[in-house]
Amino acid sequence: MQKFHQQLLAQSEAIWKKILNHRFLKLTTDGSIPDDTFKAWMRQDYIFVREAIPFVALLLAKAPIQLRSNFIDIISGLNTELKMFRKNAEAHGVNLEHVIPSPTCHAYIQFLMNIAYNGSFEEGFTALYAGEKVYFDSWMEVKRNQKNQSPWQEFINNWTSEGFSGYVDWLAVTLDELAQGKPERDLKKMEEIFLLIARYEYLFWEMAATAEAWPV
Amino acid sequence: MQKFHQQLLAQSEAIWKKILNHRFLKLTTDGSIPDDTFKAWMRQDYIFVREAIPFVALLLAKAPIQLRSNFIDIISGLNTELKMFRKNAEAHGVNLEHVIPSPTCHAYIQFLMNIAYNGSFEEGFTALYAGEKVYFDSWMEVKRNQKNQSPWQEFINNWTSEGFSGYVDWLAVTLDELAQGKPERDLKKMEEIFLLIARYEYLFWEMAATAEAWPV
Amino acid sequence: MQKFHQQLLAQSEAIWKKILNHRFLKLTTDGSIPDDTFKAWMRQDYIFVREAIPFVALLLAKAPIQLRSNFIDIISGLNTELKMFRKNAEAHGVNLEHVIPSPTCHAYIQFLMNIAYNGSFEEGFTALYAGEKVYFDSWMEVKRNQKNQSPWQEFINNWTSEGFSGYVDWLAVTLDELAQGKPERDLKKMEEIFLLIARYEYLFWEMAATAEAWPV
Amino acid sequence: MQKFHQQLLAQSEAIWKKILNHRFLKLTTDGSIPDDTFKAWMRQDYIFVREAIPFVALLLAKAPIQLRSNFIDIISGLNTELKMFRKNAEAHGVNLEHVIPSPTCHAYIQFLMNIAYNGSFEEGFTALYAGEKVYFDSWMEVKRNQKNQSPWQEFINNWTSEGFSGYVDWLAVTLDELAQGKPERDLKKMEEIFLLIARYEYLFWEMAATAEAWPV
Repeated sequence: MQKFHQQLLAQSEAIWKKILNHRFLKLTTDGSIPDDTFKAWMRQDYIFVREAIPFVALLLAKAPIQLRSNFIDIISGLNTELKMFRKNAEAHGVNLEHVIPSPTCHAYIQFLMNIAYNGSFEEGFTALYAGEKVYFDSWMEVKRNQKNQSPWQEFINNWTSEGFSGYVDWLAVTLDELAQGKPERDLKKMEEIFLLIARYEYLFWEMAATAEAWPV
Repeated sequence: MQKFHQQLLAQSEAIWKKILNHRFLKLTTDGSIPDDTFKAWMRQDYIFVREAIPFVALLLAKAPIQLRSNFIDIISGLNTELKMFRKNAEAHGVNLEHVIPSPTCHAYIQFLMNIAYNGSFEEGFTALYAGEKVYFDSWMEVKRNQKNQSPWQEFINNWTSEGFSGYVDWLAVTLDELAQGKPERDLKKMEEIFLLIARYEYLFWEMAATAEAWPV
Repeated sequence: MQKFHQQLLAQSEAIWKKILNHRFLKLTTDGSIPDDTFKAWMRQDYIFVREAIPFVALLLAKAPIQLRSNFIDIISGLNTELKMFRKNAEAHGVNLEHVIPSPTCHAYIQFLMNIAYNGSFEEGFTALYAGEKVYFDSWMEVKRNQKNQSPWQEFINNWTSEGFSGYVDWLAVTLDELAQGKPERDLKKMEEIFLLIARYEYLFWEMAATAEAWPV
Repeated sequence: MQKFHQQLLAQSEAIWKKILNHRFLKLTTDGSIPDDTFKAWMRQDYIFVREAIPFVALLLAKAPIQLRSNFIDIISGLNTELKMFRKNAEAHGVNLEHVIPSPTCHAYIQFLMNIAYNGSFEEGFTALYAGEKVYFDSWMEVKRNQKNQSPWQEFINNWTSEGFSGYVDWLAVTLDELAQGKPERDLKKMEEIFLLIARYEYLFWEMAATAEAWPV
């Protein structure tokens, strides 16, 4: 029988394909991505990772006791990721101060926060899995197909590392456990969240590729 | 001396002008707006008003005791607005069931919920004032300039009524009181929220005018 | 088969018996309760009902769409209850201004708020049912056994009215639906909350009977 | 001029004196505290420290960006404290599994959670300072007056260490900054929270000394 996380992935096949085929990833893979495009993404994703910490902290506050230390580790992992951003920003002359979140980046963060506050722990956990799984699959797609080292290799390596892979596996297994025995109506809400996160992830690549900005 | 709500409006002049000049309002004013465009807005705004109720309920939970009954009234007012939507939807053959919130509608709701949960009461109140003030000014702009009755007249009348006007005035006066004596850093957060809400409002007209949809 | 709300009541039999046999209710029934004791309860319960409004507002924010209007009605019902308190306070010369919540009253409110914020909607709903059911059963116990009119008759009548009885029935039926198909671990959390609310309700009578106060 | 944290301490002088003079601390100081009394406290305080982690996580979610890493460290510090509890529990044959929070322990945790969710960041921070400052002053009182080593020395040393002292100082300095320029009505809410936390802390010693339990 299909596990819950497999069912989520099967239901999101169409959007997943669009994500993995996004030109942002294609151009990163073949090395032709314009510096400014990648840097725009870097600035926005830095904000996103930074604001993922409050999101994960809210999940920690609702987590069953036996999962709390995992969430402390996740917060600490995000903190380490921020350092990687800062190091690469310095190396590539990118200013991470005073970045204004783009509409999509802003919206995505609001969504995560609202799920964490207003939703059940299981719903919040689904959102976390969705976002991390998109990143793992996206950067694996790049890594598998790249022929040359990228100037952005450290980002590619970060989300394709064994550590990250193991973490995403743990999220999947734990999500399956959390979904165990839940009535259909609860699972449906988790499915909707999973799909919506995938959509926001697609829009995030799109935002970077189009240098999206606020009207004023 | 400028009151706080006046200061907010002065700082948002540029985006405010863009909102009031949006083609969605222009076309509604001169009667040339395509039915489908207005109906798309109607469906999305129905969702928005419906989801404003949880937002206002969260503000009620943080409101000072002396403002609580006002918030009970606001919830009740939103409920009445929903009835107006349903009545007009029936009259114009618009289906309000199973509407999928567009990206902008979804994002705007998430933002409101996150402000209400994560922000101070004063910040949430600022967001409420911003959204209602945009609607009052937008529909007043339509009403002042329209030469003929609109098939959508009831919407135009709703947000330009004396009742609504008085409510928006009360929001402004109360916001000024809430801002009284607050340190600059607190006011700045309120200003940022006010500006962001105005931006989301602009994107909301844009969404209706462009029939915005999710990638998949 | 036993319905979920029946199961909750069965599991709480011991504490329920202690509640219904509390001397506060006994003395109210036979008319011998000291004025000051009843008035102490009145002041504390006024605070409690007032602070139940934010609690119910938070539940509204998490409620499934089809239950939202019920929650708007519940808020409005609590508001009406406050008026009954104020009317009786005036009639009996009780000052409802500047009441300091006693430790138990304060703690009970904090618990409700934390359930509403941190728990699932179903958990919050369980707490609401528990509290209302205790009141219905407690005051029914008084009403059934009283031989003479009480000076506090309006309170006795309020929570034994047909309207209130129907509301508590609706809570029970709806709770059963919400519990439908939920895995054991979710039901267990709801059971724990139900029991804890019953305990706090017992302590609430105890607080009134002992004129509980803060150490300083 | 008096700093804000000094003002808080001055206003709480009466309850503070009662806390520092509590027989639980006196008996711990002179070594005559019954094992069962101390162990009852140990079990309850273990629960309390464990549940302080979600509280601090919620504060992290509302914290200004520049304070977030401090909150990550505080969570990590609480985690280390839990290890100390487990180590000492093992050494003294205390079972930390399946502890039922006493009424006071339960209530205090609910209060913290509600402040974190419903209050402003500044209010939550005040609660954190209040709780930690009580512990620092209480255990310093023990340490200063004890003539012999205690079987519970590691607890005494934990909250009187240089590290903990520095942390409490940092809380005071940061609270003063957070209070800077705030209007009187905001400061008043912080003062009320400070006083209430001190009261709950007093009741916590009382609970341990009286082996407080639920009615059923």
